[in-house]
Amino acid sequence: MYIDKLVESLGEEKVTQNKTELTRHSQDESMHSAVKPDVVCFPVTTEDVVEIMKIAQTFNIAVTPFGAGSGLEGQANPVNGGIVISTEGMNQIIEFRADDLAVTVQPGVTRLTLNKYINHYGMTFPIDPGADASIGGMAATNASGTTAVRYGSMTDQILKMTIVLADGTVVTTGTKAKKSSSGYHLNELFIGSEGTLGFITELTLTLHGIPEEIIFARCTFKTPSLCAEAAQSVLLSGINVRRMEFVDPNTIKRVNQYGGYTYPEKYSLFFEFAGMKQSVEEEAFFTEEIMRDLGCENWEAAKDSKDREELWKARHEMSYAFRHVQGYDAFSSDVCVPLSELPTMIHFATDLLSKHAIKGGIFGHVGDGNFHTMLAFKHGNQEERDIALKINDQVVDRALQVGGTCTGEHGVGLGKMDFQAKEHGNSLKIMKGIKQLVDPQGILNPGKIFK
Amino acid sequence: MYIDKLVESLGEEKVTQNKTELTRHSQDESMHSAVKPDVVCFPVTTEDVVEIMKIAQTFNIAVTPFGAGSGLEGQANPVNGGIVISTEGMNQIIEFRADDLAVTVQPGVTRLTLNKYINHYGMTFPIDPGADASIGGMAATNASGTTAVRYGSMTDQILKMTIVLADGTVVTTGTKAKKSSSGYHLNELFIGSEGTLGFITELTLTLHGIPEEIIFARCTFKTPSLCAEAAQSVLLSGINVRRMEFVDPNTIKRVNQYGGYTYPEKYSLFFEFAGMKQSVEEEAFFTEEIMRDLGCENWEAAKDSKDREELWKARHEMSYAFRHVQGYDAFSSDVCVPLSELPTMIHFATDLLSKHAIKGGIFGHVGDGNFHTMLAFKHGNQEERDIALKINDQVVDRALQVGGTCTGEHGVGLGKMDFQAKEHGNSLKIMKGIKQLVDPQGILNPGKIFK
Repeated sequence: MYIDKLVESLGEEKVTQNKTELTRHSQDESMHSAVKPDVVCFPVTTEDVVEIMKIAQTFNIAVTPFGAGSGLEGQANPVNGGIVISTEGMNQIIEFRADDLAVTVQPGVTRLTLNKYINHYGMTFPIDPGADASIGGMAATNASGTTAVRYGSMTDQILKMTIVLADGTVVTTGTKAKKSSSGYHLNELFIGSEGTLGFITELTLTLHGIPEEIIFARCTFKTPSLCAEAAQSVLLSGINVRRMEFVDPNTIKRVNQYGGYTYPEKYSLFFEFAGMKQSVEEEAFFTEEIMRDLGCENWEAAKDSKDREELWKARHEMSYAFRHVQGYDAFSSDVCVPLSELPTMIHFATDLLSKHAIKGGIFGHVGDGNFHTMLAFKHGNQEERDIALKINDQVVDRALQVGGTCTGEHGVGLGKMDFQAKEHGNSLKIMKGIKQLVDPQGILNPGKIFK
Repeated sequence: MYIDKLVESLGEEKVTQNKTELTRHSQDESMHSAVKPDVVCFPVTTEDVVEIMKIAQTFNIAVTPFGAGSGLEGQANPVNGGIVISTEGMNQIIEFRADDLAVTVQPGVTRLTLNKYINHYGMTFPIDPGADASIGGMAATNASGTTAVRYGSMTDQILKMTIVLADGTVVTTGTKAKKSSSGYHLNELFIGSEGTLGFITELTLTLHGIPEEIIFARCTFKTPSLCAEAAQSVLLSGINVRRMEFVDPNTIKRVNQYGGYTYPEKYSLFFEFAGMKQSVEEEAFFTEEIMRDLGCENWEAAKDSKDREELWKARHEMSYAFRHVQGYDAFSSDVCVPLSELPTMIHFATDLLSKHAIKGGIFGHVGDGNFHTMLAFKHGNQEERDIALKINDQVVDRALQVGGTCTGEHGVGLGKMDFQAKEHGNSLKIMKGIKQLVDPQGILNPGKIFK
């Protein structure tokens, strides 16, 4: 019935029950179970989304947004069936304002597509979660990644959004100005809300100049704690690194096999320095001094863009190197803790991994205190799966104990719901109140974030 | 009756109806009319604030928070009388975590007190609104100032807060980690909410290393538009200035008189570069090249800290130089617009000032697109006052037309309420819904932000 209405309102080409499409929109890249929606819509405009919402509200149907499907916590899995709204057709760069260092895009534009477009003009959108995620999905999960140490998360890069609410009302949040003290800050409320408060149809983003010079470097240490301490020293020295990543030997071994690389299989730090020529050289020089003072085993730095590209390609493949092993399932923790707690946290996670007979590795964005404990287990082996889940619980519990968060960048989705009460305490009531206020029928991405 | 309860609950020394205190807590530094509260409370702990809130709720009494009283939009004026909660006694630095580059403070700590404490450890809290504002007040208004071009606003520097809600519930928002994708981002909802959603009793702030080297510089141009264009060029070049301020001749003339300075009375840009030695020299060098290419009349740069301190002291006094003239009232606009709109906006405001027989000047944070049109009029002269208000309206209207905001850093308070509907459109309904959700009786700072 409601599907007929959707076809009537949007036209046949924007509404499908094709089985391949239903399957394609049944899950993201996480290990959370696939659930097929009843129908997939491909809106092109804000008005199309309004029509979908009005029908969904009338018939009380669940609406789950779907971007590039690269999420890691099941946010895009339509667990209650109903309508999936794909942003695939909302792929236009609406307005590029070079003089404002800003661009307005539809949510289905991916970060690589955007960068391909703006790189010609000497600009870059630097938030880099690894996957070629959609900008809408990145906003919905408050994504970040390897460059967060300098640029922060999506919440730091979004100026303005257009959002369709559950009742079909179109609102805008924020302005095109760089800062504001006017009214409540609704941008940040919707960023990271994973489609549970509204559907984002336009985003105005801050852009950055492509740095004049980039140097990358890597070094290794004897222990993971020494790596974490070294990373902390760099930040305390005020060196404005653009990337600073920790990787453990297990992960390097795995990615060497996966991608045919030959990186030393040791506790490693990978750096990127970016900016004006002299500044960058000065930063790399001082970082090397700090690393050597702290007893690094080696230091290699280079300006060659081919080597650099390979390094960050390998970094991005680390997660895939675990996830895409035949016969294995894998997932990762995503805790983020105060910097001072990072050495003992990484030590704690390393210990857990080596104590249990479980495949895994640790890597992450040590400049933010954010790291991933990758946990792999044989498909169908319940015992191994339980051990992996228990390790994850222990890592998260400890992160919360030391004042951190259960998710630094992946979002809550299905996988982090259990930790929300513990992390947020009383303020969870405010979150639930806001959800109830904006989506009283509970049709927007039901079954996510809140138990 | 409720005042007896306050005395009973908090003790006499924390509750006063002393006339001097009532007067001292009747208004901030704005031109908005003073209104005396019925009682002023001086809590010391979160628990004290809980007690006050419970009594206020029971007796349905307005509660207005009061920090250093340096606000510019009347946020601290208790327009409905009732209780003023002063943060004067909540002046403790609770926990300084050097390794995390973080500090937890009570809301009454002022930014200079905080900096005096942490500067010893090589760190700085860089948000600088000019006045020695309280950290709580700065959070409540999402303050920023001369360094926002590099560090953003308060919203970019706050990790975690403890907040007492209208019903006395204590909640925490955010975590001590640098980033999070967990649940809705309530930090940003409360930051800038001007005490209308809750009373902040603890704040964990991000700190920054004191830069190794600082260079300041200034230059002048023939027109205000040229200044704005020059500022834009600096940003497009990716130079990470720490301060970049525009000042018009009227303002320089006024502050020269006020503070006995001898700055050239021309359209001026003031710069601060800060970081590692070579980087800073490189930045200053390139900025000078850009300025000369664009036809600046002169360029003076220096590392001398005395000259630099005098310059920023003068910059901070610009507002006072207008506000503290015997027999005159003064206020300023606080619009913030996309960078590309800044040259025409400043030209527009300059034109309005010169067209009308009204004293005023223009200065502001051109790196953010945020500037102030200072408007002064003879006390009691209704005609002049009306002209000033009309100019303000025109400046704000134009800022909104070009995609900007009515207030970049001062907040809404009493002075920007009229522009909320126009700026926020439909999303104002969400804001009001949240206010109703969290403070159904409307006792928290009534009469502010919303009409």
